[in-house]
Amino acid sequence: MILTVTLNTALDLTYSVPALVPHTSHRVRETSERPGGKGLNVARVLSALGHDTVVTGFAGGPTGALLRELLATAAPSAAGPVTDALVDSGPVTDSPVDSTPVTDALITVAGNTRRTIAVADRATGDTTQLNEPGPQIAADEWAALLSRYEELLPGADAVALCGSLPPGIHVSAYAELVRAARAAKVPVLLDTSGEPLRRGIAARPDLIKPNTEELAQLTGAQEPARATRDARRRGAHGVIASLGPDGLLALVPEGSWRARPPAPVRGNPTGAGDSAVAGLLSGLVEGLSWPDRLRRAVALSTATVLSPTAGDFDRAAYEELLPRVVVEEHAPAA
Amino acid sequence: MILTVTLNTALDLTYSVPALVPHTSHRVRETSERPGGKGLNVARVLSALGHDTVVTGFAGGPTGALLRELLATAAPSAAGPVTDALVDSGPVTDSPVDSTPVTDALITVAGNTRRTIAVADRATGDTTQLNEPGPQIAADEWAALLSRYEELLPGADAVALCGSLPPGIHVSAYAELVRAARAAKVPVLLDTSGEPLRRGIAARPDLIKPNTEELAQLTGAQEPARATRDARRRGAHGVIASLGPDGLLALVPEGSWRARPPAPVRGNPTGAGDSAVAGLLSGLVEGLSWPDRLRRAVALSTATVLSPTAGDFDRAAYEELLPRVVVEEHAPAA
Repeated sequence: MILTVTLNTALDLTYSVPALVPHTSHRVRETSERPGGKGLNVARVLSALGHDTVVTGFAGGPTGALLRELLATAAPSAAGPVTDALVDSGPVTDSPVDSTPVTDALITVAGNTRRTIAVADRATGDTTQLNEPGPQIAADEWAALLSRYEELLPGADAVALCGSLPPGIHVSAYAELVRAARAAKVPVLLDTSGEPLRRGIAARPDLIKPNTEELAQLTGAQEPARATRDARRRGAHGVIASLGPDGLLALVPEGSWRARPPAPVRGNPTGAGDSAVAGLLSGLVEGLSWPDRLRRAVALSTATVLSPTAGDFDRAAYEELLPRVVVEEHAPAA
Repeated sequence: MILTVTLNTALDLTYSVPALVPHTSHRVRETSERPGGKGLNVARVLSALGHDTVVTGFAGGPTGALLRELLATAAPSAAGPVTDALVDSGPVTDSPVDSTPVTDALITVAGNTRRTIAVADRATGDTTQLNEPGPQIAADEWAALLSRYEELLPGADAVALCGSLPPGIHVSAYAELVRAARAAKVPVLLDTSGEPLRRGIAARPDLIKPNTEELAQLTGAQEPARATRDARRRGAHGVIASLGPDGLLALVPEGSWRARPPAPVRGNPTGAGDSAVAGLLSGLVEGLSWPDRLRRAVALSTATVLSPTAGDFDRAAYEELLPRVVVEEHAPAA
């Protein structure tokens, strides 16, 4: 089982408009809504890859209820195995194989789960994003999450800690979750930014997956190879830097690699980073070599950019891309 | 009791951002949500003015449930009397005077009530609007609305028919509702636009309240006095044309008046037209003269522009403006 933690889950709404023009009124013809927050996106891709996946984090209020309802009924991007309900708090489903949900181990909170709104211009696909801040989390709700997390860790083959912190959560929250995973000897990947990333790294996660902007903010270095080395020095055992359309740069105890798509692609990059995390974690759990993990991560994130639905991956594109991703050894770290 | 009908209710979300910049990401620091759709806005103002108010129309799905919850608990703009529950389907409350809800006689539908999103630039107050289309309404749901409306009409002193039609509702729906009100001898105000307005007028409502754009679209005439006369000829017994910051132009069987605020004001015009409708209807039910009805309508809509919260009115501003609204007889209709 792979566990993903999303402290600031979201109901993701996508609105399609001809073009967003500030200070005018728009009739939205096409809308979609689905469970969001980075860890839920990672879980959806893991589920589509056939992995048992459990999600924890917080959900509350009417939007939280709707998010959980969609989570229970949403089909993953592609057929996966039926997931066992691993915790008694999650809904048990008897859905057919092609609508297997991830297992819901979210903690119910008093506050209202946030919405995010992506307004996509129909012609260009360019997206304008509006993100609500998320509910205030109380001390007893955080304690309930920690307790649920400790219960789930012994059954997990890997854990991903994903996204921003909602109001009320202390800035060292991820550091605390990293330490608990390390103590339980469960490989832990941290995907966040800013001060929560800085503090989390000091707790020595197995992997971090920053993009170049997050790396520069963390280390002050603009050059990715230099920033990646610096991030390792700050405590991360391995760093997978996302270079956007140029793929990934990996600096891990076993070596260093560059992985890139066979050709540049155009599309919507929403969720591409989350698909890369799913590729890395599934490859780890399956015991793949580093080059194969990176190949999968790049193929998945490229197939996500190519998907017509933001955040989903195009399975045919994924399978076509997988053998064509270019992986090269990178000059050893200085 | 005053009845308002909102066929396309909405959950109105307002997001405050420093400035909306297309194709970038925005962290929304301030959000508000409340029951919306023109008829619900009218009802909220009527309730604040101390009138028993019943709302009907459609609500469904998770957003419909949230809308009804907010409707049951929302305090009106200012203190009003306790509203009796006039229909057994609405929630009966024993709230104190300052949180009296309007009475909920909405019809539950299978589809999901729409959201509207107003993105307000903090510095200028300029607003960008994103409106979902609303749920598909089935034939039996429309029949249930008609039946509920017929039950409510005998107890109503006036009725307002407000806003756009959701998908699935035939374009003569308002004409049908106007005819039923006329048959029951209940004064009926129609506030919509486009083809539903054109068809509705032919059923001879007592009043319509178009703005200059809606009037021009209806009649082809750009000049408000001319367009107002033309709209009467098409069937409306009385026309109250909204001239935006210049106030109202009234052409009714009893005469013709211009009413304008004492001085121009700056602010957010969202809901100003709905407040004007509430002023007209409450003045009708209280037996005020036409000049006094128009005075109230202009003072309420100006106090709505001045309110810091979109769609609410500033009661102190309203009371200060009321005696200062300028009402003049207008040249008799040609």
